[in-house]
Amino acid sequence: MELINGGICAAKGFTAGGIHCGIRKNKTKRDVALIFSEKKASAAAVYTTNLVKGAPLAVTKMHLLDGKAQAVICNSGNANTCNANGIEVAQAMAKLTADTLGISEDDVVVASTGVIGQPLDVTPIKNGLPALKEALGENSSEAAEGIMTTDTVKKEIAVSFEIDGVECKIGGIAKGSGMIHPNMATMLVFITSDVAISSEMLQKALSADIQNTFNMVSVDGDTSTNDMVTVLANGMAGNKEITEDGEAFDTFMKALNTVTVHLCRMIAGDGEGATKLLECRVTGAADEKTAKTVAKSVICSSLTKAAMFGADANWGRVLCAIGYSGADVDVTKVDVSFESAKGIIPVCENGSGIEFSEEIAKEILLEKEIVINVGLNSGDFSSTAWGCDLTYEYVKINGDYRT
Amino acid sequence: MELINGGICAAKGFTAGGIHCGIRKNKTKRDVALIFSEKKASAAAVYTTNLVKGAPLAVTKMHLLDGKAQAVICNSGNANTCNANGIEVAQAMAKLTADTLGISEDDVVVASTGVIGQPLDVTPIKNGLPALKEALGENSSEAAEGIMTTDTVKKEIAVSFEIDGVECKIGGIAKGSGMIHPNMATMLVFITSDVAISSEMLQKALSADIQNTFNMVSVDGDTSTNDMVTVLANGMAGNKEITEDGEAFDTFMKALNTVTVHLCRMIAGDGEGATKLLECRVTGAADEKTAKTVAKSVICSSLTKAAMFGADANWGRVLCAIGYSGADVDVTKVDVSFESAKGIIPVCENGSGIEFSEEIAKEILLEKEIVINVGLNSGDFSSTAWGCDLTYEYVKINGDYRT
Repeated sequence: MELINGGICAAKGFTAGGIHCGIRKNKTKRDVALIFSEKKASAAAVYTTNLVKGAPLAVTKMHLLDGKAQAVICNSGNANTCNANGIEVAQAMAKLTADTLGISEDDVVVASTGVIGQPLDVTPIKNGLPALKEALGENSSEAAEGIMTTDTVKKEIAVSFEIDGVECKIGGIAKGSGMIHPNMATMLVFITSDVAISSEMLQKALSADIQNTFNMVSVDGDTSTNDMVTVLANGMAGNKEITEDGEAFDTFMKALNTVTVHLCRMIAGDGEGATKLLECRVTGAADEKTAKTVAKSVICSSLTKAAMFGADANWGRVLCAIGYSGADVDVTKVDVSFESAKGIIPVCENGSGIEFSEEIAKEILLEKEIVINVGLNSGDFSSTAWGCDLTYEYVKINGDYRT
Repeated sequence: MELINGGICAAKGFTAGGIHCGIRKNKTKRDVALIFSEKKASAAAVYTTNLVKGAPLAVTKMHLLDGKAQAVICNSGNANTCNANGIEVAQAMAKLTADTLGISEDDVVVASTGVIGQPLDVTPIKNGLPALKEALGENSSEAAEGIMTTDTVKKEIAVSFEIDGVECKIGGIAKGSGMIHPNMATMLVFITSDVAISSEMLQKALSADIQNTFNMVSVDGDTSTNDMVTVLANGMAGNKEITEDGEAFDTFMKALNTVTVHLCRMIAGDGEGATKLLECRVTGAADEKTAKTVAKSVICSSLTKAAMFGADANWGRVLCAIGYSGADVDVTKVDVSFESAKGIIPVCENGSGIEFSEEIAKEILLEKEIVINVGLNSGDFSSTAWGCDLTYEYVKINGDYRT
């Protein structure tokens, strides 16, 4: 497998673009993105578990009932959520996009991100669609920019790999762990591939993958109303269509996982106000659920996050988060160490503190990417979760007036 | 029922004191507190659910097996948790206290709060005990100071009330939602009463009460390893001993609840870095569990907390927190309003935004005590939870180096 350029346009037959259409006041900020596949593609998606769901999710879900899609339209600046006319607006976005591209509106994925509870005027999108269609090309980066809210970096990646000797590609863009002034954190991920794969197997791959990737990311514990991950695979690579488990499916899964882990790390590291990417690696768990529960609990602990911001080797907070996670853990067997590019330092063994150099610990924790290793010493299961530190800037971003 | 002075010394037969014994470096800060009852008292306690538990909790639990106690010893500055010799140190604290007071060590409640994972030297406590015994008197405030860590105000209250025409009293002190530089948030509450009540009924009262009081408080979502609430009731008021359900028990429950709600509000309002006390009042729930789950979820939402810090009427975050709470709620029926001493403003009806004056909302939210009203319109159950806003100061307190 090889990392390549091109993002969501790396896979054959996909073009993308992003422009400013007028939803945002700032004219230098792109606020709508379009992704188009030459051929109708197998499509799979997963959605937020929040009971309050953005209207675009309901429309997308309906459109993907047949497992097929050909385009994605996504605006930033307004989440189109908790609005009385949300569904109509989302449907109008799909219809307008379909008409512009000459495809069926059932084949359009609709997404929105931004402020919640404020009616979304479809006019700027309507007026912008001709220019957006014109902008379609090898423009993954512009699409990635079009879906950003308070993200500080655009997030894209692509990989190439082989299935049965045929070169295939997967690329993805994401926005996330940021908010527009002033609202809902939303995570959106759009993945494109030229692999030939049935809708069923594509959904199976995505649903399995997110358990270890996007579901293991937390910036602030607030599950968004608009989270969505979609994959479009148009088959233009020319491989024999994947319709069942086997080597080809495993290869696809591995490539997909490379893309999703990369995007997860980018989302966590660019969490609102974050100065550090935190990774909690749990090993030695009695079962997978325990490993995941513990990893997520550590990554979500405000106290642990604040300690990491301060480069403070305050392992007691890690142990505390393990203890209240709800997982059935023998705390007298727990080992903890902190790790970064500067090295690794054990700080707790068998649930009790051990002597360590605060100076070395500080040097390790001053790095931008920190790993918190948790050894449960009770079995063979492991899990990794990603998060970020808790900073003044997080409070500033989220405490500001909307107006 | 009447609010009175005297804190934990208001009830007949109780004395208390607090001194600096040397666990903390700062000599102006009291670091140990003692509470003593002339007569052996019925005792009840509840403990943290964290699997990582402070050694003092294990020792106290053992001592309260017979439902009786006569003294409480509590130090601040060190949590005596995750230490290899923790149990021995906690037992030594109890033994030394018992010897000093001439009582049985089985009748001593032991508690510690402060930094985790650093061995606690019992010597300062041993050396300080004679002076601490000397300090016993009507000194509830000094005891309250002795258990403070990063608390900015001492927390005490007392009420008087009648059972069968006999005057009774309950008082309490608490520390909580603060940490010592640099460690674990711990909540400790010690309540004293002169009511005559059996250990069984006392435990029943406490266990029921905390479901609606201390278990409904959150500052940062991190459940401490050392949380403990204890009640001592020595019977010196002279009422007929409460040994079963009935009017007298209900009166006691009501008085106890007045004390615990007061302390909950003080703890939440003095949460680390907090500038505001938040109260979420959920009504119209289909069952009690739903009401509690929703109230806790709103109070725990980092985004809602940060919005309140910014006096931002960002009700979408409240709806979002309701949606991901895990409770089975019909989000299309949800009403939300913000309330304070300045008035009340509805912001969301039937799950959708309504027009409101941002200016009035801001004026309401600039107050120090904010109520978030959530109407679920699906039943008759209600619940209240307490929390605080998320501020720069919280990050500062918890991001600082320990050293």
